[in-house]
Amino acid sequence: MFLPRRFIELSAKLGSLPGIGPKAADRLVFYLLDQSEEDIRALADALVAAKREIHFCTRCGNFAQGNLCEICQDLSRDGGLLCVVEEIRDLAAIEKTGVYRGLYHVLHGRIDPIARVGPEELGLNRLANRIRTDGVHEVIIATNPNFNGDITAMYIAKLLSELNVRVTRIATGIPKGSELEFADVFTLTQALEKRTDVQG
Amino acid sequence: MFLPRRFIELSAKLGSLPGIGPKAADRLVFYLLDQSEEDIRALADALVAAKREIHFCTRCGNFAQGNLCEICQDLSRDGGLLCVVEEIRDLAAIEKTGVYRGLYHVLHGRIDPIARVGPEELGLNRLANRIRTDGVHEVIIATNPNFNGDITAMYIAKLLSELNVRVTRIATGIPKGSELEFADVFTLTQALEKRTDVQG
Repeated sequence: MFLPRRFIELSAKLGSLPGIGPKAADRLVFYLLDQSEEDIRALADALVAAKREIHFCTRCGNFAQGNLCEICQDLSRDGGLLCVVEEIRDLAAIEKTGVYRGLYHVLHGRIDPIARVGPEELGLNRLANRIRTDGVHEVIIATNPNFNGDITAMYIAKLLSELNVRVTRIATGIPKGSELEFADVFTLTQALEKRTDVQG
Repeated sequence: MFLPRRFIELSAKLGSLPGIGPKAADRLVFYLLDQSEEDIRALADALVAAKREIHFCTRCGNFAQGNLCEICQDLSRDGGLLCVVEEIRDLAAIEKTGVYRGLYHVLHGRIDPIARVGPEELGLNRLANRIRTDGVHEVIIATNPNFNGDITAMYIAKLLSELNVRVTRIATGIPKGSELEFADVFTLTQALEKRTDVQG
């Protein structure tokens, strides 16, 4: 091999990250070796600091540097509205719309019979307790509209049916800007079944 | 913002690397926070160690961990054959062919009249001295076949014409596996001018 051991070592580590292939990893190392030692040290420190200081919010499960995440600390948000998502990346997707002003509950997973993940593993009782104590008036279930996400949603809806809270599910249908021609049959079936009235 | 400061900080640093956009950077941070603290520490250490320990080979300018690079240390290679390239990435491209068994000379640049880079800035006298003292019998000029690469090649050829050494230039022409139809006029012109005899 014509490159130093440290080069190969770093390239292998970068190449194991998602979305970075061996060629891109080599290019990254070429680029990084061209930067100042100070900049490289800052990148290394940022990596270690992020891993050391970021934990899960004790209330909602989002990323947080302290006990509570930025969203739970934001007093301008509606504490009576709760959106249940599978992962933090789903929370991130909803935040990007800019239209949701309630709080979240991140499950960090979904009911998955094949992987033997049940309601206990997801801590769904913690969700029920939170709704009882935090004065929540509506729970929006935003688990993914696929098999596991749907059964998770159904289980949560049943669990919460005894509590005095409105339970809703995000709408499924044809994505905005797409074309009917390219929609799969399941999506199109849902879109037909869940059709809404149009004001004349 | 709904994410901790450390998340945003690390994502910004990763997003400033070539080939990694803001979305890919966020995805990388999500992935990295899912890894063990040990793995993150190892990645950070690999970054710092690579930058600290990798320097340029004192003989040829390739990356090296000690004084000499892996190629200059390889006694099985032909020390009388020298390939001149602009950058280490060009050396890497040639090494990947597996057919070249000589040594290299990396210019770390090219003659560039607009950027005011001349023969002095490239240390071309160092190249001439090396040829005198190392017993080099052939120099293959593998600078890029574009304006700056060509004038660099011409300058080197003139500089070395006084020395007792064969000077060659890598061939230009239609890339193997491509189609004439899509070749640009300059490449096709070169391919016609530099046509070779075919054995009947």
